[in-house]
Amino acid sequence: MGDADTLFRLAALNTDYASCIDADRLEDWPGLFLEHCLYKITTADNHRRGYAAGVVYADSRAMLTDRVAALREANIYERQTYRHIVGMPALRPAEAGEIAAETPFLVVRTMRDGRMDLFAAGVYLDRVREDSGRLRFAERLVVCDSSRFDTLLAIPL
Amino acid sequence: MGDADTLFRLAALNTDYASCIDADRLEDWPGLFLEHCLYKITTADNHRRGYAAGVVYADSRAMLTDRVAALREANIYERQTYRHIVGMPALRPAEAGEIAAETPFLVVRTMRDGRMDLFAAGVYLDRVREDSGRLRFAERLVVCDSSRFDTLLAIPL
Amino acid sequence: MGDADTLFRLAALNTDYASCIDADRLEDWPGLFLEHCLYKITTADNHRRGYAAGVVYADSRAMLTDRVAALREANIYERQTYRHIVGMPALRPAEAGEIAAETPFLVVRTMRDGRMDLFAAGVYLDRVREDSGRLRFAERLVVCDSSRFDTLLAIPL
Repeated sequence: MGDADTLFRLAALNTDYASCIDADRLEDWPGLFLEHCLYKITTADNHRRGYAAGVVYADSRAMLTDRVAALREANIYERQTYRHIVGMPALRPAEAGEIAAETPFLVVRTMRDGRMDLFAAGVYLDRVREDSGRLRFAERLVVCDSSRFDTLLAIPL
Repeated sequence: MGDADTLFRLAALNTDYASCIDADRLEDWPGLFLEHCLYKITTADNHRRGYAAGVVYADSRAMLTDRVAALREANIYERQTYRHIVGMPALRPAEAGEIAAETPFLVVRTMRDGRMDLFAAGVYLDRVREDSGRLRFAERLVVCDSSRFDTLLAIPL
Repeated sequence: MGDADTLFRLAALNTDYASCIDADRLEDWPGLFLEHCLYKITTADNHRRGYAAGVVYADSRAMLTDRVAALREANIYERQTYRHIVGMPALRPAEAGEIAAETPFLVVRTMRDGRMDLFAAGVYLDRVREDSGRLRFAERLVVCDSSRFDTLLAIPL
């Protein structure tokens, strides 16, 4: 698999990922991860300092599924719309059988009354593996530029 | 034509599309559509409810050309600058001879005095066909996250 | 080298470029340019009028390196974070041995207190060449949509 193919498959994975969240198909989102995985939302400051804890932390697909169920229960998701704009992935050195990539992202939020704001910006640090014929996340660290989070960050980024 | 090639050609079409609008080459914009086509700007709410009407609606290249002429006449276009940031297309199931894709977009507006704001965000739902050696839109639905439109939406998105 | 390959290598160059700035690896940034190069930040208005002068101007890699040193000295860089979101490049007609491309960009700034704003939007007009096995910029014109600049534009875009 050449670099161009790899980048394309990564870009397609990122598009699927964003689409699950932005089109409110949250139930499909955990399936983009391996069963044993790491999903973490953290800040650039904390990532730089090597803090393991995240604002959001899940280490299995089952935890991600639970998270989606909780979001549906709380019913806070429907009040606004998110739109991910995701840049091209940059390949990084990786272990055998894995692809490592760094990908910038921006999330714009639209409120019910039409107001739009910049919700989050940052970089995805990913480890991705082939699994049953498609790429899935072994690890996605969502490193946010901002250190200020509001409760809405219950929502996947 | 492999998926990677298809995605690249779609990405190039999207770049041309954005460039026509952002570089004020509006007269080139209708040429990116087939003669018989559908161009519609609508809201996520209305799209979900299946409403056929759009904030903007054109079903032929000639109508798009008329629209550009009207914009030039009204001379409202020159007062601000638009910048489309368009994500990677996600391929969707399509009829034979067509490509279907879903592509997120964000439009930033810069006013004459330098102020910038988020003008629109949403997703393009496209059906694309080969025509005289290049891809053209059979259909572009511009589904906006926001339900609030101002008159500026006379401008193509 | 086919168009798809070219686009991918350009996209990877753009990602590297953005990553140097956004991840505060400014010292790596001049290496993305040829020794004899042109780097200019200008406005759409001035570019249209054919003004040669730029808000920022450098015509060698050494000047870019000096610029980074000055930024480090002034220590103004660390107070905020930038995030480039860069679109797909559109290929343009080029001289033999060169690739010419036009690429939209958006830069979001995050302040130390968490506030985010739209910092800059515009288009990169690039001439790129193969040099020692990788692509480097012979010329990057950063054409900003806004004509209003503040002192922060000491920072590369």
